[in-house]
Amino acid sequence: MRLPNHIGIIPDGNRRWAVSKGMSKEEGYNPGISPGLQLLRLCKQVGIKEVTYYGFTVDNTKRPKNQRLAFTDACIKAVDVISKENASLLVVGNTESDMFPKELLPYTKRKSFGDGGIKVNFLVNYGWEWDLNKIKEGEKSSKKVVSYINSSYISRVDLIIRWGGRRRLSGFLPVQSIYSDFYVVDDYWPDFKPEHFFDALDWYSKQDITLGG
Amino acid sequence: MRLPNHIGIIPDGNRRWAVSKGMSKEEGYNPGISPGLQLLRLCKQVGIKEVTYYGFTVDNTKRPKNQRLAFTDACIKAVDVISKENASLLVVGNTESDMFPKELLPYTKRKSFGDGGIKVNFLVNYGWEWDLNKIKEGEKSSKKVVSYINSSYISRVDLIIRWGGRRRLSGFLPVQSIYSDFYVVDDYWPDFKPEHFFDALDWYSKQDITLGG
Repeated sequence: MRLPNHIGIIPDGNRRWAVSKGMSKEEGYNPGISPGLQLLRLCKQVGIKEVTYYGFTVDNTKRPKNQRLAFTDACIKAVDVISKENASLLVVGNTESDMFPKELLPYTKRKSFGDGGIKVNFLVNYGWEWDLNKIKEGEKSSKKVVSYINSSYISRVDLIIRWGGRRRLSGFLPVQSIYSDFYVVDDYWPDFKPEHFFDALDWYSKQDITLGG
Repeated sequence: MRLPNHIGIIPDGNRRWAVSKGMSKEEGYNPGISPGLQLLRLCKQVGIKEVTYYGFTVDNTKRPKNQRLAFTDACIKAVDVISKENASLLVVGNTESDMFPKELLPYTKRKSFGDGGIKVNFLVNYGWEWDLNKIKEGEKSSKKVVSYINSSYISRVDLIIRWGGRRRLSGFLPVQSIYSDFYVVDDYWPDFKPEHFFDALDWYSKQDITLGG
């Protein structure tokens, strides 16, 4: 089976999940940590080389404070959990804003944990405009932009899997997503099941990859 | 019904359609012109304010020459057809390359035809990297990028409809597509039916629009 090298994960639907369980919205984030770890282990098992998690965005930080604190805390915990696996971990986001949690600053340079291996990128206080704005400092004599964006250490994404039913990118790595195939799972992220992942891989293996050609 | 202001059209599947009819691949483009006109008239009928057609891209021009000539010719004809409607028309693409057809140069500034009205953007020899590369000339003291891209005269896209079954953007306006909802029609573009459009509008009206918030 032809596998994607790099998978992007949009773990959406935490708040809708919480509400559907009679919980308050901010209680939907912590139940997303264990699915993230499960998914990472599955990626390693099948031989995926790189995975990028959409933690939270600059847009997201405009939500009510109790939600913001809850998703920030869940991201800190998720990064901690990943750092106990064999993985090469990088946190990417706007560190110059107060919304970036200080606890994650040590992860903003790629570091290997355990035996290393799979590259894991975790987007924290990531903004598409922050990402693209860096192009202004790019070499004008070059026609390339890929190496000048703020997220340039993250490679092209082959497959994006989004949970929670919405069919949109919501600002996820606009440059790396140019040619990505996009798979949507209707279930909410906290209801993650391994079959979501395997169905997405199966679907991806049947796509004709042309990179725009 | 809540309508999108701006719809992006990715009219894919021309070559697969031709092959399925026992024709050669390059014969698949001309049969895409009439659907484009039909769709434009439907957009006007329901009150859509702006529509953008994905004509051809810099990536596409690397295809065999007979295909390149065929899709270029179909785009010239399509723009001609649109210029006979009531519409405010703009062609956007890299005019500095030989691949940009001279016939379309007069349309690279927005011009009203007939009674004007709906904004129609037609991407011709458009490249996502060409589009973003212009950011290098942007004002460094600003944190914005939207006004500095080459396609800055094209507004945010609310709904993208792609024919031909593929679930990817293939470089379509990365900045304007940041928050777009993405609807895929499995039929090939030359098999366009009005119900594709109405189904997409119906689906869109049920989406919860958050712009990343």
